[in-house]
Amino acid sequence: MRITLIGSGNVATHLGAAFKNAWHQIVQVYSRDAQHAALLAYHIKAEPINSLNDINIETDLFIVAVKDDAIAGIAEQLARYDKLIVHTSGATSLAVIELFTTKAGVFYPLQTFSTNKEVNFRTVPLCIEGSNEAITKLLLNLAWTVSENVSRVDSEKRKILHLAAVFACNFPNYLYYAAGALLTEHGLEFNLLRPLIAETAAKVQEHLPQQVQTGPAIRNDINTMQAHLQLLEQHADLKQVYSLLSQLIIKMNNSTDAGA
Amino acid sequence: MRITLIGSGNVATHLGAAFKNAWHQIVQVYSRDAQHAALLAYHIKAEPINSLNDINIETDLFIVAVKDDAIAGIAEQLARYDKLIVHTSGATSLAVIELFTTKAGVFYPLQTFSTNKEVNFRTVPLCIEGSNEAITKLLLNLAWTVSENVSRVDSEKRKILHLAAVFACNFPNYLYYAAGALLTEHGLEFNLLRPLIAETAAKVQEHLPQQVQTGPAIRNDINTMQAHLQLLEQHADLKQVYSLLSQLIIKMNNSTDAGA
Repeated sequence: MRITLIGSGNVATHLGAAFKNAWHQIVQVYSRDAQHAALLAYHIKAEPINSLNDINIETDLFIVAVKDDAIAGIAEQLARYDKLIVHTSGATSLAVIELFTTKAGVFYPLQTFSTNKEVNFRTVPLCIEGSNEAITKLLLNLAWTVSENVSRVDSEKRKILHLAAVFACNFPNYLYYAAGALLTEHGLEFNLLRPLIAETAAKVQEHLPQQVQTGPAIRNDINTMQAHLQLLEQHADLKQVYSLLSQLIIKMNNSTDAGA
Repeated sequence: MRITLIGSGNVATHLGAAFKNAWHQIVQVYSRDAQHAALLAYHIKAEPINSLNDINIETDLFIVAVKDDAIAGIAEQLARYDKLIVHTSGATSLAVIELFTTKAGVFYPLQTFSTNKEVNFRTVPLCIEGSNEAITKLLLNLAWTVSENVSRVDSEKRKILHLAAVFACNFPNYLYYAAGALLTEHGLEFNLLRPLIAETAAKVQEHLPQQVQTGPAIRNDINTMQAHLQLLEQHADLKQVYSLLSQLIIKMNNSTDAGA
């Protein structure tokens, strides 16, 4: 397929590389920032542009991978070319593009992408939605060329997925930071926690989290929890986090058959 | 070394296997439950016992891997043999054993162990403490035979590590559960989140968490956070978690140079 990428951030970069590896032709890369456009375009052998007036209409698909609140404005400008326009946002409804065209879709990769960190794109869940069955099928087929993990997900469910991703990714990463801050304060290295963090995530690749919960809260080990709260006496924020999450783990234990 | 294992839970099981693989002799395995003792003893070619009266004194080291509140009672009974006694607990002071003997130490593996899930023990951080320099050195040397990640950690610092492990392991696992519960409620599969969870943990193996934080809170994306809180209207607990952790991510962003 001939694909035009709108955006040059982490999602655009990783998607662009995946499409190029699957032998699609990336026609152009647009970014407001000419340097960003040039850098990504160089890597994926596309033409860089930094004005939407320079769009080459010889393309099959516009992929709009920009900040959520910029999607509508871009879709409005691209609609005149009468090509398929998709966005890549978990939190944004398909309707935002359908305001301007009936040829609309969503191509949402459920993964956290960073600069300078490669991801095995074949394992990335791609959540697909189209304005009609033909578009959905076309996007599903395109998705299968780059990933083995493709689902049809409507806008309502996609919002839930996006919310769940905050719990499964953004919040755990903050807790890694909090753990590291405690260590640093006592002259200990974050490195000591890395194997534990890796193993915690590895365990739920095969099991459900409620089957592998460990720690003082799931054992209802009041003494340890009290000792921990005392250690957090000078950290009001972390004390609050500790109390809340421990209470919820105890509650989970009472509502499921989670082990110790 | 000739090692006697007191306990047959996850820590005892994984330690026992690691010692056996490193060609140490496991003399006996004690568990109150004869079947548990027999099972572990069979795997690591030791003699199972279910009474401390059956202790074979031809051993160099007692490793007490039992529940925290059972350590003192066991140490008291073992002290008569005048051998080195160590416990494996993050939350328990060395002094608990020193009440009964001057030959005391700690051998704390900073990892989460589960039944039926193998761990590469060579990467497990082992935190070592001894009552005197000779004991500490002996335990450090023993630790190096099974792991490449050995540190000297005193009782105060070990308590901090144990607390940090709750933040880095137990709480993230609960958040995986919470994310999965949201998905299940909407007919979506937990499997969709597994690559994201794996990548989130993989990122901090190379970077510090504050360098790779993503999500609406770090971007100060008020619209998305409000939409998420609205989706959580029927989930008072998760709404509280979402608000608290989002606020703390915003605070972290203001106090570090964390990126977006």
